[in-house]
Order: sequence, then structure tokens, then C-alpha cells
Amino acid sequence: MLMVHVHARVKPEAIEAFKRATLENARASLKEAGIARFDVGQQMDDPTSFVLVEVYRDAEAPARHKETTHYAAWRDTVASMMAAPRASVKYESVFPAEDGW
Amino acid sequence: MLMVHVHARVKPEAIEAFKRATLENARASLKEAGIARFDVGQQMDDPTSFVLVEVYRDAEAPARHKETTHYAAWRDTVASMMAAPRASVKYESVFPAEDGW
Repeated sequence: MLMVHVHARVKPEAIEAFKRATLENARASLKEAGIARFDVGQQMDDPTSFVLVEVYRDAEAPARHKETTHYAAWRDTVASMMAAPRASVKYESVFPAEDGW
Repeated sequence: MLMVHVHARVKPEAIEAFKRATLENARASLKEAGIARFDVGQQMDDPTSFVLVEVYRDAEAPARHKETTHYAAWRDTVASMMAAPRASVKYESVFPAEDGW
């Protein structure tokens, strides 16, 4: 299991539109066989900052995710909303075990 | 729902001991009524860096967590393993909805 945390900072005027687009992407992404979770959080002390908590079932799943139409739609929709380039950090899952997701 | 990401950097020689202590804390924490998730990840490009992904059901749950014996045991056990002070970031959950955790 592979956890990817994507950190996104958006323009203040784009907060609500970013949420809408990201919710749509999250719901569609959860239907992918390779994706166990796709949670979205908004930073409490900086509402322009978001984290996408993506949990993939294997090492190939992130690449397959990026080939989907919902990912491409999200990427294109939010491109003009970004205040800075997105950053991502990859983690190997220590807990829970594979059957706990 | 409140997501708290705790970032911990440990001394290289303490990696395995930190994992053991943190797994114990995670398993016990999941039994708390106020905790929905307690995931642990190890950063792929820096195995001394860990993230604890804690999801709480309400604003009071983090304080209740810090009153438990398993939290105190973890805090004391890992104190000497830290390479730097821990940092935490709080997020409001945007997705999933409350019944999706």
C-alpha cells in the first residue's frame, strides 16, 4: 500500500471551485480498483491550502490513476486555480496492514 | 471530522523501535470512540520521516486522545527517538462526508 499526500495551494477566489472539482475527482477515483482511499482536507489555519490523501493498492496504481478521464478533467479544471505548483510526498504504509484499508 | 497530520523525524537507529511503538499506539487509538482512522506512513525517499494520519470525529477528540494511557506511553517511549520536534497540521475534512469514514 502506497500513501501519496498531494499538497495544493489555491488562489483565494478559487477555493470553492477547487473543492467542487476535487470532490468530483475524489468520488470518481474511489471507483478505481487500485485506489483504497481518496480523502481531501482543507488546512484549518490556511483555507487556501489543501491536502489530498490518496492510498493506492500497488505501485502501478498511481500511473493508472493519471490515465483516467476524471484525473485529466480535474488537472485541467484546477490548473488556473493553483497559487503554487503542487507538491507530493510518497509514503509506504506502516499501519494498517493491507486488509485494514 | 478533523484530520491531523503529525510529522515525525526519528534518529536512524530508532526507526524500527519507533515503528513498533507507533503501531501499538495506533491499534489502541483506533479503539477510542472519537477516532475514525489512525494511519501511519514511512516516507519513501527518507525512511527516518513518518506521518501519522489521525482522523477525529469531533473537535474535543484530540484532547481526549492525549489523556489516554496509550498516548502517554507512546509519547514517553518515543521521546528519545526523535531527531527533531514533531510538527502537526490540522485539516477540516472536505471528503468524504461524515458517514464515509
